[in-house]
Amino acid sequence: MRELGCDGVPKPFERVVRANIGDCHALGQKPITFIRQVQALAACPALASSAAVPEDVRQRAQEILDDCTKSSVGAYSPSAGLQVVRARVAQFLSARDGVRACADDIYLGSGASDVIKAVLTMFVQDVDGKPPAVMIPIPQYPLFSGTLAELGLRQAEYFLAEEQQWALDVDELQRCWSRASQDCAVRALVVINPGNPTGQVLTRENMEQIVKFAYEHNLFLLADEVYQENIVSKPFFSFKKVMHEMGAPYSSMELASFVTCSKGWAAECGQRAGFVELRAAAAAPAFRVARAVMQCPNVLGQCILDCVMQRPAPGDPSYPQFAQELSDIRQVLAERTQTAYETFNSIPGYFCNPIDGSMFAYPRVSIPEAAQAAARELHMSPDEFYCLRLLEETGVCVIPGTGFGQLPGTFHFRTTILHPRDEFQHMMDSIRRFHHDFLQRYS
Amino acid sequence: MRELGCDGVPKPFERVVRANIGDCHALGQKPITFIRQVQALAACPALASSAAVPEDVRQRAQEILDDCTKSSVGAYSPSAGLQVVRARVAQFLSARDGVRACADDIYLGSGASDVIKAVLTMFVQDVDGKPPAVMIPIPQYPLFSGTLAELGLRQAEYFLAEEQQWALDVDELQRCWSRASQDCAVRALVVINPGNPTGQVLTRENMEQIVKFAYEHNLFLLADEVYQENIVSKPFFSFKKVMHEMGAPYSSMELASFVTCSKGWAAECGQRAGFVELRAAAAAPAFRVARAVMQCPNVLGQCILDCVMQRPAPGDPSYPQFAQELSDIRQVLAERTQTAYETFNSIPGYFCNPIDGSMFAYPRVSIPEAAQAAARELHMSPDEFYCLRLLEETGVCVIPGTGFGQLPGTFHFRTTILHPRDEFQHMMDSIRRFHHDFLQRYS
Ligand SMILES: Cc1ncc(COP(=O)(O)O)c(C=O)c1O
Ligand SMILES: Cc1ncc(COP(=O)(O)O)c(C=O)c1O
Repeated sequence: MRELGCDGVPKPFERVVRANIGDCHALGQKPITFIRQVQALAACPALASSAAVPEDVRQRAQEILDDCTKSSVGAYSPSAGLQVVRARVAQFLSARDGVRACADDIYLGSGASDVIKAVLTMFVQDVDGKPPAVMIPIPQYPLFSGTLAELGLRQAEYFLAEEQQWALDVDELQRCWSRASQDCAVRALVVINPGNPTGQVLTRENMEQIVKFAYEHNLFLLADEVYQENIVSKPFFSFKKVMHEMGAPYSSMELASFVTCSKGWAAECGQRAGFVELRAAAAAPAFRVARAVMQCPNVLGQCILDCVMQRPAPGDPSYPQFAQELSDIRQVLAERTQTAYETFNSIPGYFCNPIDGSMFAYPRVSIPEAAQAAARELHMSPDEFYCLRLLEETGVCVIPGTGFGQLPGTFHFRTTILHPRDEFQHMMDSIRRFHHDFLQRYS
Repeated sequence: MRELGCDGVPKPFERVVRANIGDCHALGQKPITFIRQVQALAACPALASSAAVPEDVRQRAQEILDDCTKSSVGAYSPSAGLQVVRARVAQFLSARDGVRACADDIYLGSGASDVIKAVLTMFVQDVDGKPPAVMIPIPQYPLFSGTLAELGLRQAEYFLAEEQQWALDVDELQRCWSRASQDCAVRALVVINPGNPTGQVLTRENMEQIVKFAYEHNLFLLADEVYQENIVSKPFFSFKKVMHEMGAPYSSMELASFVTCSKGWAAECGQRAGFVELRAAAAAPAFRVARAVMQCPNVLGQCILDCVMQRPAPGDPSYPQFAQELSDIRQVLAERTQTAYETFNSIPGYFCNPIDGSMFAYPRVSIPEAAQAAARELHMSPDEFYCLRLLEETGVCVIPGTGFGQLPGTFHFRTTILHPRDEFQHMMDSIRRFHHDFLQRYS
């Protein structure tokens, strides 16, 4: 699709707008200076004598290097990650949840993808002759379906309730579980909160229902909480906090929760840094062995995680610049989220739930019967047809709902919303105009 | 084992000498300045204006950034790696082998471990109802046994011929294959050259035999060539070059060859950068899809690979320092290799093959019957018992042969040999003294 603009044939648009990938830096967000300075000094400590960097940057880099064997980021770290970083993660989680987190439960990875795959690998064994299955939401982030397929795990799909702001409906969870249980052993439940592609933040009440459901069905809960720092207006409750506050027996349930530096304000996708907090006493030893085979996550990525877990504080030399950069990023997120929500709902035939967080919108689009027929002719789903036309006519590249899943008969696409203001406005205008023309053509 | 020195009980040695892990920086090798400067500038381009770095460093960092989306190492790269880096890899391979390499065959990974696992994953399917098996050497680097176990692949073990300088004996390959073929479909053959833990470089003649064997049995060849830059005195021939020069039908065989920045003169273990050159037209599309699910390898690691593939050249501002650093590293390797070989062979009851390369020695030790009996009492293998005693009495920490595999009835250990000269001499003296006392006690 990206090559569409480059084949020499004149196009009815000036440029391709890539709205297909959740990568803030690729959309022009500037890296956080503090993070990059710490990384640079950790890579090349000799620069400290010649480069203009604040004192807290030097200190932070030194603290990390002190925990590297022979002070080199080129030495393997422990396979779960540097102790100093894991301690900082534990502090962050403790402060976030008001529940003590333990550094021994933290395993750093090469992005969240790496540790998500590692945790899913825990479930590959048959149970009493039944093949294992994992419950995942529809729509979902395709890492889950892709990894389950690669690992030979069955995928049990539950639909998010679009009419209830993409909540998890317990009857639907039950339906999914019962059906999958006919021929599989359902081992785990994946919840993505805040949602990708859906952008909702679950209510606390809904989270409690989910925890109870998982408890009753003896499911291991995988909480993909990578967008927790991308929330605009609601508070974020982690599953760990909710479980803890629900008390026994829920407070001691098994749980894997995922965080990544690819998201949030750092948005350092290319640097591959994330972690899982794994509360699973029985499974931990085998998990540790499997992680050790792969050596360790990249140490400069671990530096970023360290910076994200403990940011510059008021009074630190780096604080003023950091605070400014952070507030700029937050403002962009708040603005785009609001504008996307309003714009999509103002287009006839579009429906979009409130976007609580993440960096996506996932509007539902009604596609006229004539267009659906045209799609069938081309052996495409209607949403694929719609998105391809959108790309060909406007240069706006979004992902059809088919890529994430949707209730049969409904059509969606996912767009990232973090473009610079002009680009974003151009994209919104293009979509509106395109949809208007599309309706005219096919009705 | 590492905690041994810290339990408060007085020990008969001053310090623990870690010789158990192939990690040069952890043993005190200094990072290459050029590499780290490029990384620092790629992470934090603003430093270019204040830091004292040579012009070729700036240029290199800029070339890499020009290939990153919006010039940020924080944007996801293509999942196979940045185009500029893969092109540089292809150039390096073409020059090394005198055979044109293609950037499309190069897939960067988070260390070689990552891509080795990814390639092994290609073989998980049953063939005609038979479970798949992979042939691996004994002794082997445990990544292979560990990954095969995790993926549910059978491991078919062939013994390296210690009496023939750890060559691969075709009769032994045949024995291994025939036996495994009784109940498995043997899919692939792993060869580690130069060897870990064994340190040999295969002769060209032996490589040709191996290629023919793989061809006749329709085996996919996995060439772990990660120590190719750690060779002291022999030339290195890649399997790709040998296959090419053998002509048809061998020149078009499938092959995966692995390289990593953890080894060689860069020795940037903690930075997780490596690649596979995968020549396998049929399997490539599925491989590409599986890699894409995991997003991309860390971009600052990709920078290192770029520097390793194209080093500073005579005339470049960084060249004099680079050349000095490189020659220091090479000299340490050459010295230690020679000294280890001579020392081990001068200890009564020790035998050690010439060490052609890698960074290890794997001497064979005869263990008196009385000591073997003492080991059995403790439910240990004799080599484990020997290494534990060595650790307890001298502080020298090496890995018993049991960890890599060995012909039944023979006993070995693996030691890294890249310590600073004094430390290395201290280690060698400790081992010699220990062995003398050990023999006295148990004979
Ligand atoms: C819901 C969700 N989980 C996990 C990830 C994995 O991110 P990474 O591997 O870059 O940390 C992503 C990335 O987009 C995501 O959207
Ligand atoms: C033979 C061999 N192959 C592969 C590796 C993997 O190294 P890495 O994942 O650090 O690139 C090693 C590391 O020691 C090795 O010795």
